[in-house]
Parts: sequence; C-alpha cells; structure tokens
Amino acid sequence: MNLAVLQYYPEFGEKEANLLKVEKMLSKAAFDLVVLPELFATGYLFTSKHEVKKLSEEILEGPTVQMFSNFCRGKKVYACFGILEREGDRFYNSSLLVGPQGIMGHYRKLHLFYEEKKWFTPGNFPLSVTEINGIRVGMMICFDWRFPEAARTLALMGADLILHPSNLVLPHCPDAMITRALENRVFCATSNRIGTEKRGGKSLTYIGQSQIVDPDGKILVRLSGREEKVAVAAIDYKKAHQKKINFYNDLFLDRRENFYKVQNHLPLKLKKR
Amino acid sequence: MNLAVLQYYPEFGEKEANLLKVEKMLSKAAFDLVVLPELFATGYLFTSKHEVKKLSEEILEGPTVQMFSNFCRGKKVYACFGILEREGDRFYNSSLLVGPQGIMGHYRKLHLFYEEKKWFTPGNFPLSVTEINGIRVGMMICFDWRFPEAARTLALMGADLILHPSNLVLPHCPDAMITRALENRVFCATSNRIGTEKRGGKSLTYIGQSQIVDPDGKILVRLSGREEKVAVAAIDYKKAHQKKINFYNDLFLDRRENFYKVQNHLPLKLKKR
Repeated sequence: MNLAVLQYYPEFGEKEANLLKVEKMLSKAAFDLVVLPELFATGYLFTSKHEVKKLSEEILEGPTVQMFSNFCRGKKVYACFGILEREGDRFYNSSLLVGPQGIMGHYRKLHLFYEEKKWFTPGNFPLSVTEINGIRVGMMICFDWRFPEAARTLALMGADLILHPSNLVLPHCPDAMITRALENRVFCATSNRIGTEKRGGKSLTYIGQSQIVDPDGKILVRLSGREEKVAVAAIDYKKAHQKKINFYNDLFLDRRENFYKVQNHLPLKLKKR
Repeated sequence: MNLAVLQYYPEFGEKEANLLKVEKMLSKAAFDLVVLPELFATGYLFTSKHEVKKLSEEILEGPTVQMFSNFCRGKKVYACFGILEREGDRFYNSSLLVGPQGIMGHYRKLHLFYEEKKWFTPGNFPLSVTEINGIRVGMMICFDWRFPEAARTLALMGADLILHPSNLVLPHCPDAMITRALENRVFCATSNRIGTEKRGGKSLTYIGQSQIVDPDGKILVRLSGREEKVAVAAIDYKKAHQKKINFYNDLFLDRRENFYKVQNHLPLKLKKR
C-alpha cells in the first residue's frame, strides 16, 4: 500500500481556503492512505473559547468531513486528519479516518498539550484499531507520543500502522517515534504542519519533519522543516505482523507483564517525597 | 552528584585481569556513582553451559563483589555492574548496586536477548528502586530498553535515575534511551562495552556509545564506539522530581491509565489473524 503524509502551512481560521489547498495537493498525489496534520483545517493557536467555537464543527455536518467523504469516495482512498470537533457545548481535539464508505474511525486526543487544556475536553473514547484493506490502523495525536502507553496499547490491540496527525513545536518527537516503531514493531506515520503562527502576543513555530518509519526503525520518508508536500512511501504492512526479531526473541511474547506493576514495597523513607 | 559510566574492552574469560583493569581505571577517576557494562568481568559470547558455569559466581562469595565492596568502602562511592550470577544450578544475567555498606540492589535481567535464553534463567525479581544519598536509582540491563514498561515501571516507582549496564550490538539503543529519559523525565546512564568477540565460529561487535542523558533528553556524555574511558557528568537529580514540563502538563498526572487497557471490542474479523 502507498502511504502518504501531507505537510503544509495552514492559514489560521481560513478553513475554506485550507480545505481547497489541501484538496488540490492531494489531487496531484497517488496514494492509498494519507495522513494530515492535527487541526489541519483551522490552525492551532487559538486566543479564545469563542474562536474555538466558531472554527469547530459537528463531525457529521461540517465541511471537513464532507470534503473528505467526497474525495475518498471519488478516489477510492483513505484519509486520516485532525479536526476541531464540537459535540454540544464541548470541544475535542480529534482525528478521523475516512474512506470510500465514509467515517471508519474517530479518536479524541487523550493527552492534551499546554493551552489545549483551556479549549478542549480530554479524550473520552478508548483507543481503537480499524481494518482497511487488510491493514490494521490506529490513531493517536501529537503529544500522545510522549506517553509510551498510547502507541503500546494500539500495538497490543493489533495495529500494524499508527497514524499520527501532529502540530509539533518541540524537537524530540520525530526521533521518539522511531522508538515507538521499534518497541512495537509497527509502522508510524506522523504528519506535521509547518510555519509560524503569531496571535494574541504569542508565537508558535512548527517543526515539519513529517515522516514514515518502518517496524525496524528505518525512516522511509522524512520531510524538511519548511516544505509543503505530499510524501509517499510504499509499505509492506505484513512486516508489522512479525514481532519476532530473531530466532529467540518475539517482542510481544517476551513481555514480562507480571513485572510491569508498580510495587508498593518501598521502604517508608522512599515513599515520603 | 558526579555520575560516571565506564566503557572498556573486557577479555573473554579473563575475570581476574578484567577486574584489575577496571579497578585501575576507576582508581584514576572521581565520581560518586559509576555504571559498568553488563557481564563486564566475564565477557559475553559464551559457547557452552559449562563455560557459563565456570565463569559464574555466587553473589556473596565471588571475587567481583569482593573487589567492589572493598573499592566502594575505601572510596565511599557506589558502583552498578553486570554480573554472571550463579544460584544453585541456575544462572542469571544480573546487576548489582554496591556501596560503602555493601550490596544495596540486585536485579536479574527480565528480557533475555538471543542466545542468553540458552544460558540464563529469566529474571524473577520485581523491578526495584533504591535510595542512595537522596537519589532514587533503579536498574535495568541492556535489551530491557526495547520494552517501554521496564523504564516506565522504575520511573513510576520513583526512580530519578536508571542505571543501564549493557552489551549492545544493535544500533538503536542509545537514541531510544533518550526517549526513555524524555517520556519518564529521568536520568539514564547506559554503560556499554566495546570490541569484537570471536568465539565458536561466531562474532559480535559491541557499539560502545556509553552515555548519560538528562530528563530533558539532553545527552550529557556520549562516548565513541572505540574508546576505553570513565566519563563523568555532574547531575542535579532533583531535576527528575519535576514531572511538570510546563504550566499545564505534568507527565505523570497527565497519564490516562483507564485508557491504557487493551480492549477486547474488536470486530470478529479483526481477531482472526
């Protein structure tokens, strides 16, 4: 399967223009499944709840899902993207997986970063794995990378591929996602945005470096910090079924789960802190 | 505290000479706590159980603990090192933490790599954390790096610093240990050996690159693949007490443990593989 990551510079608040730009970029590329950045259509650096509300959409009624439903049906492809989801008076930093038949997966970011805690309700759906064309995919969003349990849970649930829409500003994630790929023997596709947002006296610069990593930790694709591009890698997802790394070691069978429990046998002196 | 990693080239089977060499290297260095490689005194590439038995020692009666007990008592320092442990007719790939008062920690490798499974009994002690001079240390050995739960469990039990005696032959571990430091906000000290062992028609080359990484993922020390050296970094262990990375995020309080469970709600189609 041809797996793609789209990297671009969204204009804050210009949802319609961003959707058009992304659709144009995708129309020129050939892929089976593409990953887009976190909150790719709205921008990220919100300054008020009012702004968040204005840019949010209900999943089934908004223009973002409509565009992707049409696009994926027409091209017979799949897309995973971040979306500013509204449900009643709550807002979520979510991602969707859309295919030719419509919505196939929905995830709400479990680990909110920084001021996201001011705007969003923390994710309240379990991590989940969906099968498309034989490949099992799971989603996580941006800062989830910092918690090894997110990727681990998806992998133990059978994910071959982790889709990872992001808006990264700190430098460590691209290399850490190599560790996520290696420890779980899964493919990881991180799509990040680029550019600088200056709003309300604040400024954020996004690091790009969208990438696709294979289960051996090999970087199949890594973009620069500046380019707008749809980058594609052909992946053999069956490589992720093989958790054996040599004649003796299988990364899943070798787990010692009984020993992964936090023990309360520390001497009192150790507990006090 | 001054934390050190010792990197050197042990001669296979020459325990007495190796102990002397290591003692000499350590005598010239100034540190509070030093980490040595996995199985540093014996070498690694065993060809028979007989050989393993011959080179093994009972913890309390062998020359390795004797040397370190004397050294640490004399210098008022701490040392963590890998040891080929014999208990009855079982052999373990173990590590010890020795200080001025004697043995303070004992760990048996939970995740055995490759042919180690032919020689050793898998670890059967819980991961544990010990306090020395106010700093809480935990031990893991080499291939344990590949399982995020090992470092995670130690960190959740309160470890500020993970001591990591190793005999690394594959390339990914040094960078993956940066992820371990970042995700847990702990210091990680990996001591690796160098050189090539050729025995019984087999050959292994060890990658060196012993390192100390801080809770921000900064490499404080990283040795080359060839040098024999005791490298020292001054660390402020209290940095590891701070799991907060900004005003909004605390890496431990932000964990969503209820969502780290492998769900059995997959459609039947997904379960079959």
